[in-house]
Amino acid sequence: MARTLHFLLGAFSTLLLLRPLPSVAAIAPGLSQGPFARVFYPNHLPTPGDTLGFPTAWTHAYANPRHNAAFPLTAHTPAWLKTGVRWRYAEARAWPLSRHKPYGANVYGERLALATMTQFYGNALGVSAVDGIIYAESDDEFAYAVNARTGKLIWRTSPVGNTFMGDPLVVGNTVYLSVGNIGFNFSNVQRYSQKTAARGAGVSYNGIYALNRINGKLLWHFGTMGATMPTPAIDHNRLFIATGSGDIYAINATTGRQVWIKRVGGIANMSDPAVYHGHVYLAMAVVPYVYCLSAQTGHIVWRGVVPDATKTGLGDVSPAVADGVVVMDAVANVPSHGGRTTMTTVVRAYNAEDGHVLWTHTMGLGPKPPAFKGGVPMIHKGIVYIGTPVNNIYQAFHLHSGQRLWTWHIPHAGAAGAGRSPPTYDDGHLFIATGARVFVLNPHTGQLVGQKYLGGRFGLVNPVIVGGTLYLANSWDWLEAVPVSAIIDHRPKHRQLSP
Amino acid sequence: MARTLHFLLGAFSTLLLLRPLPSVAAIAPGLSQGPFARVFYPNHLPTPGDTLGFPTAWTHAYANPRHNAAFPLTAHTPAWLKTGVRWRYAEARAWPLSRHKPYGANVYGERLALATMTQFYGNALGVSAVDGIIYAESDDEFAYAVNARTGKLIWRTSPVGNTFMGDPLVVGNTVYLSVGNIGFNFSNVQRYSQKTAARGAGVSYNGIYALNRINGKLLWHFGTMGATMPTPAIDHNRLFIATGSGDIYAINATTGRQVWIKRVGGIANMSDPAVYHGHVYLAMAVVPYVYCLSAQTGHIVWRGVVPDATKTGLGDVSPAVADGVVVMDAVANVPSHGGRTTMTTVVRAYNAEDGHVLWTHTMGLGPKPPAFKGGVPMIHKGIVYIGTPVNNIYQAFHLHSGQRLWTWHIPHAGAAGAGRSPPTYDDGHLFIATGARVFVLNPHTGQLVGQKYLGGRFGLVNPVIVGGTLYLANSWDWLEAVPVSAIIDHRPKHRQLSP
Repeated sequence: MARTLHFLLGAFSTLLLLRPLPSVAAIAPGLSQGPFARVFYPNHLPTPGDTLGFPTAWTHAYANPRHNAAFPLTAHTPAWLKTGVRWRYAEARAWPLSRHKPYGANVYGERLALATMTQFYGNALGVSAVDGIIYAESDDEFAYAVNARTGKLIWRTSPVGNTFMGDPLVVGNTVYLSVGNIGFNFSNVQRYSQKTAARGAGVSYNGIYALNRINGKLLWHFGTMGATMPTPAIDHNRLFIATGSGDIYAINATTGRQVWIKRVGGIANMSDPAVYHGHVYLAMAVVPYVYCLSAQTGHIVWRGVVPDATKTGLGDVSPAVADGVVVMDAVANVPSHGGRTTMTTVVRAYNAEDGHVLWTHTMGLGPKPPAFKGGVPMIHKGIVYIGTPVNNIYQAFHLHSGQRLWTWHIPHAGAAGAGRSPPTYDDGHLFIATGARVFVLNPHTGQLVGQKYLGGRFGLVNPVIVGGTLYLANSWDWLEAVPVSAIIDHRPKHRQLSP
Repeated sequence: MARTLHFLLGAFSTLLLLRPLPSVAAIAPGLSQGPFARVFYPNHLPTPGDTLGFPTAWTHAYANPRHNAAFPLTAHTPAWLKTGVRWRYAEARAWPLSRHKPYGANVYGERLALATMTQFYGNALGVSAVDGIIYAESDDEFAYAVNARTGKLIWRTSPVGNTFMGDPLVVGNTVYLSVGNIGFNFSNVQRYSQKTAARGAGVSYNGIYALNRINGKLLWHFGTMGATMPTPAIDHNRLFIATGSGDIYAINATTGRQVWIKRVGGIANMSDPAVYHGHVYLAMAVVPYVYCLSAQTGHIVWRGVVPDATKTGLGDVSPAVADGVVVMDAVANVPSHGGRTTMTTVVRAYNAEDGHVLWTHTMGLGPKPPAFKGGVPMIHKGIVYIGTPVNNIYQAFHLHSGQRLWTWHIPHAGAAGAGRSPPTYDDGHLFIATGARVFVLNPHTGQLVGQKYLGGRFGLVNPVIVGGTLYLANSWDWLEAVPVSAIIDHRPKHRQLSP
């Protein structure tokens, strides 16, 4: 009955939307009625008490330039958030979590079908958690706001017919979505040999869509020629955006007006900009460089390389920045061993100010992984944690010396490989969402201390830990909350380890 | 009030769908609940009397191998269909018809944005009309069944997260949808220089989705590696399918099981197969040939070329077949005139049995048009009618002799060019949907005898004429019915000629 009531409330919200809304219809197709129309359930908004203990803004992919999305207990954390809550929310293309194989595996093979789920059906990145609300972008063409305590939908909207592959940014009253998919149209396929191909140009519409964060209403959009697959970064009321046409923009976060544009060339894949001490850090593919730009002017301060990086590797990975050091990695080519393609992952640290190389390491050999070619690094208190799908491992390095501390081999890595997502450090534990599981390691030794099978598959999903709850999104198109205690204390039974 | 009632009926149908439907959820993500869930309004089905006068099946894109979608009055045609009805149905990404410019024109420019609307937002092809129901595929990720008399929605479904660019086929109790979009993933971009690039592989999911034609329920799907942008053809309970990976399939139309596969190479863009006297005709791009295959075995009977055709032109156009003649055309390269890219359109007729070239003509010079590079030919009683966006004209040729009969220049062709869609011959008039208008010509002279501004833009949309009603779909994501009399008798006022 409660379900019916909620649904009918929803129906009446929709009824209101059936009236023509010329101002909205005038800025984007499909918003005024029909299946893509925004829905809003104000009765599912968090109570004022339930917003406590959460961050009040979300300025970067993976929360911050370090990529550590942990928000420990405070004096204000409510009891439910301390204990942890458990819920699941099925997004629009939800594939049953009981399904171990991706949709389409019989045609594409499991390896390609896994990448396709991450790129076209589910959540490529994890969630954002702000003031008691979980925000998520999905490749299903919708963005979602869900009550962090109850898992109930607050709003859902689809301001453009394309995949949302990022992490929603939230500042003030606004949510920012990034829009773009992996496809190239035929004219750009033809341009690839000249290194001028733009990803996403003419493949639906790209750019940034700014919404009211309470009700999901579209405020404005900033269109770009190339795909805006990376999540922008926001600092001092400016959004920094990287696109598939090799353009970097700074726009005013309030008005959406362009402040500067820098055409560096190449292709932004999933390399999310990071802003640190007045500089913007990001990487491009095809014309493969790591860039440091002035946030003020867009001028290039320095640019660096990762030796032998594959064409896409460098543009995939988001640099992590902390303590004056930028850490970057990419899957790299290794001279052929008897005709078989062998790869490694090269990780490199640069002085953030001038790009001077501090250290470089390789992470071991393996076959070429499909899709995303690297692992997103995370930095916590002078240690870098980084994975790779080449040989399905995570490693830890001293940030300043580059000393390797440990190597951990991911069990059940799956057909497309695991190890792409950044870990989260929280209260003496390292949490890693990869494959169909969340693993808990001892961050000092790399020893496995806990794990839980949750189903689906995690793409570039970092565990977002607020108080005692861990929030996740996956490629099967689900959002999920799990008590931290349920993962740390979990003793897996045999059947939960399979498949 | 009627609107509210209908909506509430809709809400209750949706309520029923909120119950888990494991059998459906198990075959495709997103079908059991949420915005992509199928909706079905049985009260909007046509009455038995309203099904009369319509075709009882739809076996080819544009209705038949001739591409003439006219179904004249019969003794059974009901009065409403004779007089003609008028309605509009807003699909899921409907852009206001009062908008003269496409969405995104300020970023892409009008030329690219027009193509993007056709390829990602609205209906690329026209509708299918069977037994009182209008069926349509849209790039908005939905297929629709609408009551042909009232314009009310019967069902809407989204069995896969991709664009539907074809014309729904309807045979017996089944509707067949073709699935695939124009994008290439990065691995296939890299393969293009080896001529082995597959369009659509790893770009969401491709293939054929078979639905119950009364309620839209998914019956089965046949997945393909490459995009299935072309509409298949159906004959003797076999579907003939061409894909972006250069594969041609015959599958059993009842079970979805493969009968044969022929890998010819190249890329199928929008060239829809035609079945005629036991042969399958279609064309491929990049490795550019027109093929005639045995419908029984898939063996190549003959293959032909169009001289100097652009890389995509040949794979775009659907051959028309009648009276033992195959007609094909493509935008073709012309030796450079002082550095400017100049194009022409080459049209060629082949003996359907052996591929012997009967005649070849060029259709005049012009600049390179964006996107679809050719015009879909239509054959009626020994005359071929064919357009081209190179110089925005239609021409008529004698089918057997190739004699050119007339040339008509399209007014208001727009930034992306006009002339891609096949005309429809009905009762002594030639109807052409191109740009934002339907034009009526004297088929013997090419003289303009009527026109009507309807708004939006017509892509590869042929007017489907049943009795006295003309059914259309457009790139602004609308379905529309207009009385034939309203177009023939229309005397345009000045404001209706602009823009």
